[in-house]
Amino acid sequence: MSEIDDTLKRIHSSHKGVIGVIVVDSDGVVIKSTLNESTDIQQSYGVTISQMVEKAKQALKDNDELTFLKIKTKRHEFVVVPDKDYVLITLINPNESSA
Amino acid sequence: MSEIDDTLKRIHSSHKGVIGVIVVDSDGVVIKSTLNESTDIQQSYGVTISQMVEKAKQALKDNDELTFLKIKTKRHEFVVVPDKDYVLITLINPNESSA
Repeated sequence: MSEIDDTLKRIHSSHKGVIGVIVVDSDGVVIKSTLNESTDIQQSYGVTISQMVEKAKQALKDNDELTFLKIKTKRHEFVVVPDKDYVLITLINPNESSA
Repeated sequence: MSEIDDTLKRIHSSHKGVIGVIVVDSDGVVIKSTLNESTDIQQSYGVTISQMVEKAKQALKDNDELTFLKIKTKRHEFVVVPDKDYVLITLINPNESSA
């Protein structure tokens, strides 16, 4: 198993309420995933969230940088950590999360 | 002072690290604000965040609803609570926030 797969599995299994972890590129294309959902649903999460990340990045000044995004809905909770070329998305069950 | 001004001032003054509170409509137009920044900067926050909120709302299924958004950058932290017609944005100093 590659190092990244290993890391994703660790995030997935070591935090309470984690439903899955997805890595997308800057266009929202799913690169890696531990989420047990259809490709369409995963792709829809990836595209929407990467568009939100891009919106935020575009608005930021040169000396600032987006570090974290939390999106809560009635049924889902997404924790988003953007990097230079990729975005790490963790999908959490809001009823089981400790935060 | 109107009830809403009163509420905004209360949010502004009762939480540690709150820099200001802004209410925008669904187009991002600033309706109310306690933030001591230029109109341009406030408007830019409002437009970017309302666009991010709209992106999220469009992607959600009928039985789901966006309830909360937290946007962290190196220099800012925004806590966003969307309502039907308006969006409440709280700007927090990330170095003073207790969360």
